[in-house]
Amino acid sequence: MKLLITGGAGFVGSRLATRLLRDGELYGQKIDKLVIADQFAPPPFLSNNPKVECRTSPLLSQCEVLHKDKFDGVFHLASAVSGECEDDFDLGLRSNLDTTRALLDALRRAGNAPRFVFSSSIAVFGPDPAHPLPDIVGDQTLPMPQTSYGTHKLICEHLVSDYTRKGFIDGRSARLMTVTVRPGKPNGAASSFFSGIIREPLNAQVAICPVKDNVAHPVSSPSLTVQGLKAVFEASKEDFLGRSGLNLPALNVTVKQMLDALENVAGKSVRALVKFEFNERIAAIVSNWPKGASSQRAARLGLQGPKTFESIIEEYIADQKGDSAG
Amino acid sequence: MKLLITGGAGFVGSRLATRLLRDGELYGQKIDKLVIADQFAPPPFLSNNPKVECRTSPLLSQCEVLHKDKFDGVFHLASAVSGECEDDFDLGLRSNLDTTRALLDALRRAGNAPRFVFSSSIAVFGPDPAHPLPDIVGDQTLPMPQTSYGTHKLICEHLVSDYTRKGFIDGRSARLMTVTVRPGKPNGAASSFFSGIIREPLNAQVAICPVKDNVAHPVSSPSLTVQGLKAVFEASKEDFLGRSGLNLPALNVTVKQMLDALENVAGKSVRALVKFEFNERIAAIVSNWPKGASSQRAARLGLQGPKTFESIIEEYIADQKGDSAG
Repeated sequence: MKLLITGGAGFVGSRLATRLLRDGELYGQKIDKLVIADQFAPPPFLSNNPKVECRTSPLLSQCEVLHKDKFDGVFHLASAVSGECEDDFDLGLRSNLDTTRALLDALRRAGNAPRFVFSSSIAVFGPDPAHPLPDIVGDQTLPMPQTSYGTHKLICEHLVSDYTRKGFIDGRSARLMTVTVRPGKPNGAASSFFSGIIREPLNAQVAICPVKDNVAHPVSSPSLTVQGLKAVFEASKEDFLGRSGLNLPALNVTVKQMLDALENVAGKSVRALVKFEFNERIAAIVSNWPKGASSQRAARLGLQGPKTFESIIEEYIADQKGDSAG
Repeated sequence: MKLLITGGAGFVGSRLATRLLRDGELYGQKIDKLVIADQFAPPPFLSNNPKVECRTSPLLSQCEVLHKDKFDGVFHLASAVSGECEDDFDLGLRSNLDTTRALLDALRRAGNAPRFVFSSSIAVFGPDPAHPLPDIVGDQTLPMPQTSYGTHKLICEHLVSDYTRKGFIDGRSARLMTVTVRPGKPNGAASSFFSGIIREPLNAQVAICPVKDNVAHPVSSPSLTVQGLKAVFEASKEDFLGRSGLNLPALNVTVKQMLDALENVAGKSVRALVKFEFNERIAAIVSNWPKGASSQRAARLGLQGPKTFESIIEEYIADQKGDSAG
C-alpha cells in the first residue's frame, strides 16, 4: 500500500513514519511506499529509507497535483501551531483550513476514497458563557474553541466528516492531547512549556514555567500518540463509531505532578532548574484549555493513556539516547 | 446606518428588508441605506424604495469589492438550500462555505467591525452513533450535521465566532427553524413540503407529502423568524451569551398537527387535497433532522415561538392578501 503522511517530518509525523516503516504493514497490508510531505526535510534515517519519498515544499501547493497519486491511506498531521495562529490569523487560515480543504479536494479528485486520519486537537474544546467547560472533556462534550487553531481543527473535523459521508474519503478525526516531551527547542505553541519544563532541566538548563503549578492538563507521550493514530486508521467504521472527532487517551496531570515526576526520575537539583515566571498571554490561552480529558471511544479501540508521567519522561530520555525511534 | 442583507431578495431576506424599512431604525439608529445583495432582483416594492440599493449578482464575486463599503450591520442570509447541496457538492462548498468566508474576509478588510448576524440552521443537528440526537435539541446539544448544508452552516458558525473573537466583526449566529408557509413554488430544499402541504391546498391544488404524518419538526413563521433575526442583531454581547449559535424559537409540530390546523382554518375539503406519497430520499434526509427544538437563550432575548400552527397558516393567508408585508 501507498501512504501519505503530511507533516511527516515533524515531531509526531516522523515518529509515526518510523513506526510504520518498522511495522512494515498497516491494516494487514504491506507498506510499499511512504510519502512524507512537509515544508522541511525529514531526518536522514527516514529520507534514506528506500520506501520513503520526500516532498519538501508547502503542502498547499503540493495539493494541486496530489490527485495524480492514488494513496491507500493518508495521515494528515501538517499544521501551524496554536501560538503562531493567534499571532498570524492568515497563516492559520492558510495552513490549517485552506490546506486541509485542498488536501480533501485532491483526494476526492483522485477518486479512490482512501482511508484518512486527521489529527485534530484537544484545542477544539473551550469555555463559553453558554457552554461552560466541564473539568474533564469527553467525546460527548460540545466543542467550543477559543483559538483560531482550535476553530480550524474543529472545522476540519466537520469537513472530514462530510467528505466521508459523501464517500470521497474514509475519514476519521482523532483529537491529540498535548504531546510531551518534545525534543529540540521551544516552538510557537502556547503549550510549548509542557515540554520545556522537563526537557530543559534534563539538559541541565533553566526552564521557565509561564503558568502556576496547579494548572492541570491532559497529556500523552509520543509513542502512545502514534499508537493512537495507527489504531484510529485501522479501526473499522463501526468500531470508530460515527464520524465525529474522538479524543485520544490522556494522562491528566498538573504542572506540580509533572515536576514531582521529574524529581522522581532525575532528582531535586534537576527540578530546581524550573523557574516560575508568570506570562499573562500564555496563561490566558492555557486557562481556556481543558484541565483533563476522557476517551471512552478510544478505550473501545483498546487505547489507554500513559499510566504515569514518569513513564513519559523515561520515554523521552530513552528516545534521546536513540534507544527508541518512536 | 448602512445595512447589508445578503439573500435580501429571498423569502426571509425580503421580509426582513421590508420590516427594517418599515421600522426605519435598528438598534436605536436610523437606517439611511439598505443594500440588498442577491443573485436575483428583489420585488419592486423593495427595489423602488429610495433607501434601497440592489446588487444583483453572485455574492462571491460581490465580496471582492465589498471591503470598500463600511457597513454598520450585516444580515447574512444568502444560502443554497439543503437539497441542492446534497445534489451538487461543489455548489454547497462555493455558495455556503466559500462565500461566507469571502464575506467575512471583506468585512475584516473594511476594518470597522460591523455587527453581523449569520442565519444558521436547525440542520446543524443530526444523529450520529457516538452522539444520539435528543428528541428536542437545545442550545446545549452537540451539533453533528448529516448534510453538507448543515455542515457548512456549522462551519460558518465557528468562523463567525472566531472572526468575532478576533474583533474583525461583532458576529452572532442564529439557527433558523424551518420557516413556513413559504409562498411560490416548491424549491430544492428537502424541507420544501413543510410549506407545500399547506400552500398548495389553500390554492386548491393537490399537494404531495413525501413523509409519514407522524414526522415531527420544529417550525416557525416568517414574521417571528424576522423578529428573531432583528432581536439577535440588537442584543448586547452579554445578552447573546457567548459566541456559539443560538436556536431561534420553534413550534414543535407533527405533519398531522399541521394538517389538523389546516382543516381548522380552511376545512376538510382543503385538507383532503394532501396526498401521501412516500419519498425515500426526502424521508431519509428528514429522518436525520430534529423532531423538536428548545430555545432557552432566545427566550432570554424575549423571543417566543408561534403559539399555534393555525396562527402560522393565518399569517400566510394574510400575507398573500397583502395585509402583511413581513
